[in-house]
Amino acid sequence: MSLIVILKPKVTEETIDRVCERIRELGLAPHVSRGDLRTVIGAIGDEAALKQDKLEQIEGVDSVTPITKPYKLASRDFHADDTVIEVRGVKIGGPHAAIIAGPCAIESHALLFEVARQVKEAGAAVLRGGAFKPRTSPYAFQGMGYEGLQLLREAGDQLDMPVVTEVIDPRDVARVSDYTDILQVGARNMQNYNLLMEVGRTDKPVFLKRGLSATIQELLMSVEYIMSEGNHRVIVCERGIRTFETSTRFTLDIAAVPVLLRESHLPVYVDPSHAAGKRDFVADLARAGIAAGAHGVIVEVHSNPDQALCDGPQALLPLEFSRLMQQLRSIATICGKTMA
Amino acid sequence: MSLIVILKPKVTEETIDRVCERIRELGLAPHVSRGDLRTVIGAIGDEAALKQDKLEQIEGVDSVTPITKPYKLASRDFHADDTVIEVRGVKIGGPHAAIIAGPCAIESHALLFEVARQVKEAGAAVLRGGAFKPRTSPYAFQGMGYEGLQLLREAGDQLDMPVVTEVIDPRDVARVSDYTDILQVGARNMQNYNLLMEVGRTDKPVFLKRGLSATIQELLMSVEYIMSEGNHRVIVCERGIRTFETSTRFTLDIAAVPVLLRESHLPVYVDPSHAAGKRDFVADLARAGIAAGAHGVIVEVHSNPDQALCDGPQALLPLEFSRLMQQLRSIATICGKTMA
Amino acid sequence: MSLIVILKPKVTEETIDRVCERIRELGLAPHVSRGDLRTVIGAIGDEAALKQDKLEQIEGVDSVTPITKPYKLASRDFHADDTVIEVRGVKIGGPHAAIIAGPCAIESHALLFEVARQVKEAGAAVLRGGAFKPRTSPYAFQGMGYEGLQLLREAGDQLDMPVVTEVIDPRDVARVSDYTDILQVGARNMQNYNLLMEVGRTDKPVFLKRGLSATIQELLMSVEYIMSEGNHRVIVCERGIRTFETSTRFTLDIAAVPVLLRESHLPVYVDPSHAAGKRDFVADLARAGIAAGAHGVIVEVHSNPDQALCDGPQALLPLEFSRLMQQLRSIATICGKTMA
Amino acid sequence: MSLIVILKPKVTEETIDRVCERIRELGLAPHVSRGDLRTVIGAIGDEAALKQDKLEQIEGVDSVTPITKPYKLASRDFHADDTVIEVRGVKIGGPHAAIIAGPCAIESHALLFEVARQVKEAGAAVLRGGAFKPRTSPYAFQGMGYEGLQLLREAGDQLDMPVVTEVIDPRDVARVSDYTDILQVGARNMQNYNLLMEVGRTDKPVFLKRGLSATIQELLMSVEYIMSEGNHRVIVCERGIRTFETSTRFTLDIAAVPVLLRESHLPVYVDPSHAAGKRDFVADLARAGIAAGAHGVIVEVHSNPDQALCDGPQALLPLEFSRLMQQLRSIATICGKTMA
Repeated sequence: MSLIVILKPKVTEETIDRVCERIRELGLAPHVSRGDLRTVIGAIGDEAALKQDKLEQIEGVDSVTPITKPYKLASRDFHADDTVIEVRGVKIGGPHAAIIAGPCAIESHALLFEVARQVKEAGAAVLRGGAFKPRTSPYAFQGMGYEGLQLLREAGDQLDMPVVTEVIDPRDVARVSDYTDILQVGARNMQNYNLLMEVGRTDKPVFLKRGLSATIQELLMSVEYIMSEGNHRVIVCERGIRTFETSTRFTLDIAAVPVLLRESHLPVYVDPSHAAGKRDFVADLARAGIAAGAHGVIVEVHSNPDQALCDGPQALLPLEFSRLMQQLRSIATICGKTMA
Repeated sequence: MSLIVILKPKVTEETIDRVCERIRELGLAPHVSRGDLRTVIGAIGDEAALKQDKLEQIEGVDSVTPITKPYKLASRDFHADDTVIEVRGVKIGGPHAAIIAGPCAIESHALLFEVARQVKEAGAAVLRGGAFKPRTSPYAFQGMGYEGLQLLREAGDQLDMPVVTEVIDPRDVARVSDYTDILQVGARNMQNYNLLMEVGRTDKPVFLKRGLSATIQELLMSVEYIMSEGNHRVIVCERGIRTFETSTRFTLDIAAVPVLLRESHLPVYVDPSHAAGKRDFVADLARAGIAAGAHGVIVEVHSNPDQALCDGPQALLPLEFSRLMQQLRSIATICGKTMA
Repeated sequence: MSLIVILKPKVTEETIDRVCERIRELGLAPHVSRGDLRTVIGAIGDEAALKQDKLEQIEGVDSVTPITKPYKLASRDFHADDTVIEVRGVKIGGPHAAIIAGPCAIESHALLFEVARQVKEAGAAVLRGGAFKPRTSPYAFQGMGYEGLQLLREAGDQLDMPVVTEVIDPRDVARVSDYTDILQVGARNMQNYNLLMEVGRTDKPVFLKRGLSATIQELLMSVEYIMSEGNHRVIVCERGIRTFETSTRFTLDIAAVPVLLRESHLPVYVDPSHAAGKRDFVADLARAGIAAGAHGVIVEVHSNPDQALCDGPQALLPLEFSRLMQQLRSIATICGKTMA
Repeated sequence: MSLIVILKPKVTEETIDRVCERIRELGLAPHVSRGDLRTVIGAIGDEAALKQDKLEQIEGVDSVTPITKPYKLASRDFHADDTVIEVRGVKIGGPHAAIIAGPCAIESHALLFEVARQVKEAGAAVLRGGAFKPRTSPYAFQGMGYEGLQLLREAGDQLDMPVVTEVIDPRDVARVSDYTDILQVGARNMQNYNLLMEVGRTDKPVFLKRGLSATIQELLMSVEYIMSEGNHRVIVCERGIRTFETSTRFTLDIAAVPVLLRESHLPVYVDPSHAAGKRDFVADLARAGIAAGAHGVIVEVHSNPDQALCDGPQALLPLEFSRLMQQLRSIATICGKTMA
């Protein structure tokens, strides 16, 4: 249980500090969330409910509301409006849809720049590329590491696209942050809590993928780990869960999109490439994702998938991606969103 | 293993009969499929492959191709073009999309006719309504039975809509067929093989729902049970599978839509109501279904869901359904389909 | 909601009839359960709770208790002691363990009698054999039908073993009952409610397998369908559920054994053969089943599995079965049971 | 693909070094495994098969065999005999069974020492206790950290029991190793590859739990990450997977035990406490685990579970544990194992 303390409009920093101090005195932990109009403070801790009265009496406090959900900062109860995240001029969330595309792994300068130009031209807003690849086998290609990150940064700068890349070790978070605009935490690390806390201490938006067998509630609890460290700019991504069905690599839980949109204020994405595992079905799942209300999809594109070092069979060809973009744009409009 | 025997264009019925007889003499079972241009005969049985040569030599036979998939008649290898099913003037499959809507259960004359008029007005092409309800508990409402069917038939006739209703017992198939235009076999009966064979002996199109934990291949094997009895007009429906996620009643396996479209020639539907189990998510899943390429959705609508005898929480209100229809129409167009 | 009406000791049949009539007058359905010491009547129906007072006042009634579980007759609340089912002198349930073994399908007189003798000698108490096989493919061996049943009856009579066989169609229940001592309802038919009701109207014990994706609660609801028709002799069987793991054919939910033992009074079995799908693991799962508290296991044995018409790869050889029996006997003793 | 290079008996270290060098020259990575009688070297890399001839010609090499399984060092193909791990005099694996028990979390000196004494007395061989707890919620008790480890070390030393504790961050591995005899990697970190590599660089046995939705093959691939860093002493533990069934916290995949025993040479454990999530079922699952062939179980015991800071509802009381130990000892004997 916890309380949301909504402050009066236009309070000073001093007031905010004083309220936080008072919350601490009551044995609760304050989490400050500064909005354009209002500042809101989460007061989290045991028996918070018993202290509602006292919090309401603090000067500068407008109202106090209890949250019963296990996730607090991630909940719509805490932040009723959609969160819109702006990164290098691209808006994500609320009425803004934005497509992320690029190769699964950064393999070479030539490939990365070729694909980057193609997806940019087709209308993608953000460039993706993996430098640290968590692979099931220790004997598989593990990514180019920092050399790859350098290439990704160059591609993003040259094409004026924000970039997103995965970080897999808490020891790498600070250094990876120097190269990327958005930090991705992958499905296998969704409950790597120390990694979540590290990315929660940066000022980069975090793109958090749902674990293969994580419930939606657990996904939001992992968001909570990030947000409770102070970083409130989180994008959540449905990428398929594990079921008995083997026609596709994973089962895209398309209903997770409207569930997340109702439960949380954060932008919601769909990853059709990893869910499908097969090129043939990627476009269908991408359209379904946008139609279900997602703010975007993250798609793997490769100009020569047969030669890809990683996940080639699920990469769209640039031409297929270009056709898909037009359909996504139309469907986004039907769902009340504008695509960047 | 089995063989597909493609006859030369414009062969006579006599030729067809002679080919079938020859197939029987070789110890195989013939399954005739008459197309506009060509007649195709499936020859199914042990060691079919060994008999390919002999089949090719029969007069009137153009070519013979082996099918290795476990489903034969349901496979695209057997029938390359999309199957279009026409029922009371409504076309289902191929480039035709059509929405099925109505109450979960037939509860009364008043309710059924009210909802039927509302969904017809909103653009639904087919009316649904359950008279025999398979309920988890023996103590729950089990449906109005034949009295309900009589009402459904009247509603369909009055509004000039084909109707679909579920049959749950092989002993009821003949009698239920007298009232309905399409026979539904529900998820719990997807592997009730004797029921499948009974509906396979009727001349009514069959609407077959995927079992809660059936693989897509098993769904197509159940289709095969129906088709192997001679009834080739089958519509398959994804309605959610069972997973660990509890935010929705079932997990809609949206990827089943493109997988089924690739594997089979039959029309593919999505049931967003049973998958979601909650009204809030039904429209999102319906849009996703059409965006993924489905030929239609089957939606529960109720004018007073709080009083519904069955599955009220997942029924859309008529106004919600009407709004949804407009979005579905636009998305169907983007996906290359015309909605009836 | 429903009520359990416990009668005073040694009431007459007249009293029982009168209580039932009164229950009906109150709009509830009575279900009589005659114990050695007491007769208990379930009173099931809407708003049963409101009628508790009135039931308590009927002459001959000792006490009335509400049951909140969705299953009533299957619940331990209704019948606190373990149900022991006696069939042809073999006791199943409570402190009695009994092993069921035999071939998957009845294939021939020779094979059936050979295997029957072998499993009898090894210590099996009940003989199994399938005459109607529900197969995924319409082109697979579907069983010998009534001819097979005739053989099974002969084998059982000759070896003085009760026999169990599956029934898959409500139209066959009466006739199959003439041949068998125990009626099996398979996993695929666990929610074939009309079949459940038909077997519930016979006087044969029913061996009900859990569906591939049925929850334990749903299994008990299916038991309730049988019991509410008057047949209280039901054995429930865990046979593996469907999960993402593919090393075995299904995932044996071993915890279902203690859960069922706590929730219900009925005997609980494990089917290690269908769960494993591979001979190598059958003995391990059988031992685990008895160790978890099951009253028995049902094991497929075949003297020549490579030639089996059905499920050969999961059949134990007679020698392997014989060794297993000795381990099972020892483990049953450790778990407080005597093996017949 | 990779090759197993078996050296002749009693080769010198010089020969081993020379073979490794030659393997490297051929573009493969050598992994040395010193047995009592023979030294075996895994040669892993692309196109290993093409180089089999050349390896066979190296002096000191007896034979070369290809392994096609994706896991190499973890495979029985690499190491045919059971691996027995000895830690502080306790033998784990092969014919040796050993029970691990203790509280979920280290909460205080008093509790830890009380429970430790009780489980030691009942016959447990290894003491467990968590100091770093990966919790779903950032607001839950996260463990006592190094202070707790200090207590665990003291308890182990005082009672002469080896201890096992979980490590959750690659940055903590070295320091945690100073306190513990066995390093545990939990289910949520099974695919935290950098953590796996860090524990693979220590000389402590690793107790690796299967992920909630990991296949058995993926579990063995994670073992491979540890072993490929040089640490061949790994114990694998089945602890329940995620399914639709909610009666227990997870579904114990009991068949994983015999599957792992067949595929790998490593000791296999079962965790009945986390699988059940409820005290009532823990003993049943523990017995099933040993009956299925496991080398041991890891059980949570607490002398006052209602006050436990973590997972109290699933902890056995000391008396219950003591009774269980006697049953486990008898079942282990039936399965051909001696319990320490």
